[in-house]
Amino acid sequence: MKLLRYGPSGREKPGLLDDQGNIRDLSKVIVQIDDAMLAPKNLARIARLKPETLPIVKSKPRLGVPYAGVSKFVAVGLNYTDHAAESNMPIPKEPILFMKATTSLCGPNDDIIQPKNSTKLDWEVELGIVIGTKAQYVPESKALDYVAGYCTINDVSERDFQLERGSQWDRGKGCDTFGPVGPYLVTTDEITDPQTLGMWLDVNGEKRQRGNTKTMIFGCAHLVSYISHFMTLLPGDIITTGTPPGVGLGMKPAPIWLKPGDVVTLGIDGLGDQRQRVVAYPGK
Amino acid sequence: MKLLRYGPSGREKPGLLDDQGNIRDLSKVIVQIDDAMLAPKNLARIARLKPETLPIVKSKPRLGVPYAGVSKFVAVGLNYTDHAAESNMPIPKEPILFMKATTSLCGPNDDIIQPKNSTKLDWEVELGIVIGTKAQYVPESKALDYVAGYCTINDVSERDFQLERGSQWDRGKGCDTFGPVGPYLVTTDEITDPQTLGMWLDVNGEKRQRGNTKTMIFGCAHLVSYISHFMTLLPGDIITTGTPPGVGLGMKPAPIWLKPGDVVTLGIDGLGDQRQRVVAYPGK
Repeated sequence: MKLLRYGPSGREKPGLLDDQGNIRDLSKVIVQIDDAMLAPKNLARIARLKPETLPIVKSKPRLGVPYAGVSKFVAVGLNYTDHAAESNMPIPKEPILFMKATTSLCGPNDDIIQPKNSTKLDWEVELGIVIGTKAQYVPESKALDYVAGYCTINDVSERDFQLERGSQWDRGKGCDTFGPVGPYLVTTDEITDPQTLGMWLDVNGEKRQRGNTKTMIFGCAHLVSYISHFMTLLPGDIITTGTPPGVGLGMKPAPIWLKPGDVVTLGIDGLGDQRQRVVAYPGK
Repeated sequence: MKLLRYGPSGREKPGLLDDQGNIRDLSKVIVQIDDAMLAPKNLARIARLKPETLPIVKSKPRLGVPYAGVSKFVAVGLNYTDHAAESNMPIPKEPILFMKATTSLCGPNDDIIQPKNSTKLDWEVELGIVIGTKAQYVPESKALDYVAGYCTINDVSERDFQLERGSQWDRGKGCDTFGPVGPYLVTTDEITDPQTLGMWLDVNGEKRQRGNTKTMIFGCAHLVSYISHFMTLLPGDIITTGTPPGVGLGMKPAPIWLKPGDVVTLGIDGLGDQRQRVVAYPGK
């Protein structure tokens, strides 16, 4: 099941994507797709609906973050062997955790706003894990039972803010619009193995990232279990799981940074594609 | 004005502290003290109430986080010269930002739960800044206009998780109960200068931290302005501004760590005191 929200920012309605690629309006059936709606019994209720009985949305609406109610946006660093190498960083012995501000969340095709004073704006296609059930100290063998679904994420990053102005990465990871999520929350019935998903990212149509979740250092089950040992994961919390090689920082012979006017396109097998235009902060 | 919430966790009612030290029940007047209620016009509405007309709460209730609706819990590292020295860290050239998980928030006198596998549990008395008005790229000269008030915070930390298991601090800062806040949200009319506040912390009645916000490297106005250049600050967002010397990590001749049974007491001039008992995670 592919859940989504559509409409202007802050006024999104709930919907789902049917097998023909139509958006179907869920707003007569549920109030919202939010953290509470991600509970297994609520997802099962939506899954019992017949999509063909729901109104088709005929326009081409903006898509928002596919569900509301994200209280934590947890990120994993250097989780692909090749990306660690291109970043000149050692392979981590255990997951590196940082956090993206929830104000960075935006729809999958919204503009990426380059912050004032930004000089090293970069991209990172990542698999997002969405928590459906409260998780504390869960064992790896049970960890995926706590997952509601998966989504495509661009972990937009500002390398000067992140790496050159101090030791802590959060400053360069959480700017507004640095967290495009979606287009869909794809529930676990459609993604039976999250470790076999191809992923790609282009800038202005040029190939930049190609990877597969099979080369993750720490897989999804390990990450959910691991993180749940350091904080309680709540329904709606989202984990972005690291990026494969090909980010701007790693380009040879020299890094390449995003600039206003650039178009970033990206996607993950089965989870849908994103497209963002880069714009300067107003009055920059 | 000293705003607070009282009652069992998750079912707190709104209240305020009157000049005689009584808790007055606000629940007949407002639904909740939350992020929306922190807007200047809403705080002004509460300020016009006569406390003596509100019912006194006669029991000694538990206190919760003094308001609901914290979407971001931003933290500043090494923001006191002496603390940077005791931590063997250089004085930062600009603020070091990290984030505490919002699931770490708890009432000012709730137990601190020592996580499983924790061996280096530490304390940090800190001044909390609570945002009242959405802030983006605000100049330092106007930054305090965006503040609703201040509160006492214990930035509880696990040094093994934070410092020894990787470069990023968030892992050791955001465990459940690592963010006691309160007892009160003290509005800015009572704290006209946040850079003159004495602060203290004891463990089992022994003196540990003594400091004053006047020795901050980056003051409150600078921090609000600075952070607003990297993310939009929303009403209810809270900034914990760093700790003065005397943390367990810095004890001589050897660090001292919290253990189950210890009692931490702390406070800041005008903002009220906290008291936490340390307990082991159940079944640890």
